[in-house]
Amino acid sequence: MEFKDDATAFNGAKHAQFADKGRMNQALSVLLMQVLEDAGVPTHFVRQLDEIRTIVKNVEIIKVEVVVRNVAAGSLCQRTWFEEGAPLKEPLVEWFLKDDALGDPMINDDHARAMKLATSEELAFLRSEALRINEVLKPFFLKAGLKLIDFKLEFGRLASDPKTIILADEITPDTCRLWDVESGEKMDKDRFRRDLGNVMESYAEVLKRAEHAVHR
Amino acid sequence: MEFKDDATAFNGAKHAQFADKGRMNQALSVLLMQVLEDAGVPTHFVRQLDEIRTIVKNVEIIKVEVVVRNVAAGSLCQRTWFEEGAPLKEPLVEWFLKDDALGDPMINDDHARAMKLATSEELAFLRSEALRINEVLKPFFLKAGLKLIDFKLEFGRLASDPKTIILADEITPDTCRLWDVESGEKMDKDRFRRDLGNVMESYAEVLKRAEHAVHR
Repeated sequence: MEFKDDATAFNGAKHAQFADKGRMNQALSVLLMQVLEDAGVPTHFVRQLDEIRTIVKNVEIIKVEVVVRNVAAGSLCQRTWFEEGAPLKEPLVEWFLKDDALGDPMINDDHARAMKLATSEELAFLRSEALRINEVLKPFFLKAGLKLIDFKLEFGRLASDPKTIILADEITPDTCRLWDVESGEKMDKDRFRRDLGNVMESYAEVLKRAEHAVHR
Repeated sequence: MEFKDDATAFNGAKHAQFADKGRMNQALSVLLMQVLEDAGVPTHFVRQLDEIRTIVKNVEIIKVEVVVRNVAAGSLCQRTWFEEGAPLKEPLVEWFLKDDALGDPMINDDHARAMKLATSEELAFLRSEALRINEVLKPFFLKAGLKLIDFKLEFGRLASDPKTIILADEITPDTCRLWDVESGEKMDKDRFRRDLGNVMESYAEVLKRAEHAVHR
């Protein structure tokens, strides 16, 4: 797995390069994989090869992008009655079909089953595992002074044992929304999406805080 | 409840008037309510007032539009991998938020609960009741030489007893996709949406066939 300096948004319509993004994202993602493994969540992580490449387990990716939301933001606010920043009483889980050509549309369990993306049992596991990951990441980011607003995960079936599904994705400011606990400032890819500036400064700050939090 | 001659499509962007549509739709809908009541499905129907107006029970409408699909068509084919006409192994159920301003977006159980549209128990009931209605309508339309491709339903909580949820919607070629069993010809609102012509001729044919089927 290689972490790139490229940034894309709006299904590829907007793109840019940010020096050092790949290195910082890998450092954060590797750190978070360790936090998750320590909490008993199996991940695809094997070992770091260099600053931007990680050896990961061989999996068949499940074509369901799993989104967990703690606070309303982004597309949820365009699609529903929630205003940005509205806390959700319970974490909300969404499935999106992993298909760029279709623009990763939202799907439900029936669609996932009908397209043979996953069985009912696998979908139930994806849901419970994503919520479990949320329960690990939420308090960890809080220690880093960051509110975990929402995040996207992909999972995969182990090539050596397809019945075993593991987390097989990066976890970075590209795939999570993270807001500063005090100021509410956005510290994630929304800085790029919405042209808020200081994109890499925020990514660096998130990494720095996470590195401190892991030692506390 | 009044059945109008107006036709709208694409969330109101396209509209027209069709003489006699209201009368024909009411006649078909009343007939189908009777078919459903006879099969033990409670509906909002009380009695016909005149050719275009029906007295219905007082309900609080649940803001979840329930779609049941037997064959892929319409928006499903834009959003997923199914080609129009592809049979679905099992009926597929979708929820849409009843909100014209938002364009009736698709939602899932978590959204419905978070927006307090319905409880988990109510959603489970909507699903099972919609599938039960499908199992009544599918063979009925087949007797009429029509394939029930998909349909949209709304439900409501009885004003006099909000714990009781009943079907509270029309069932017409405006809300169902119906294809001729032999030719595959579309006999529903898609004739209007896609400018296929003979819109009212098809609605009249559906009504005529349903009236014959009910006596068989």
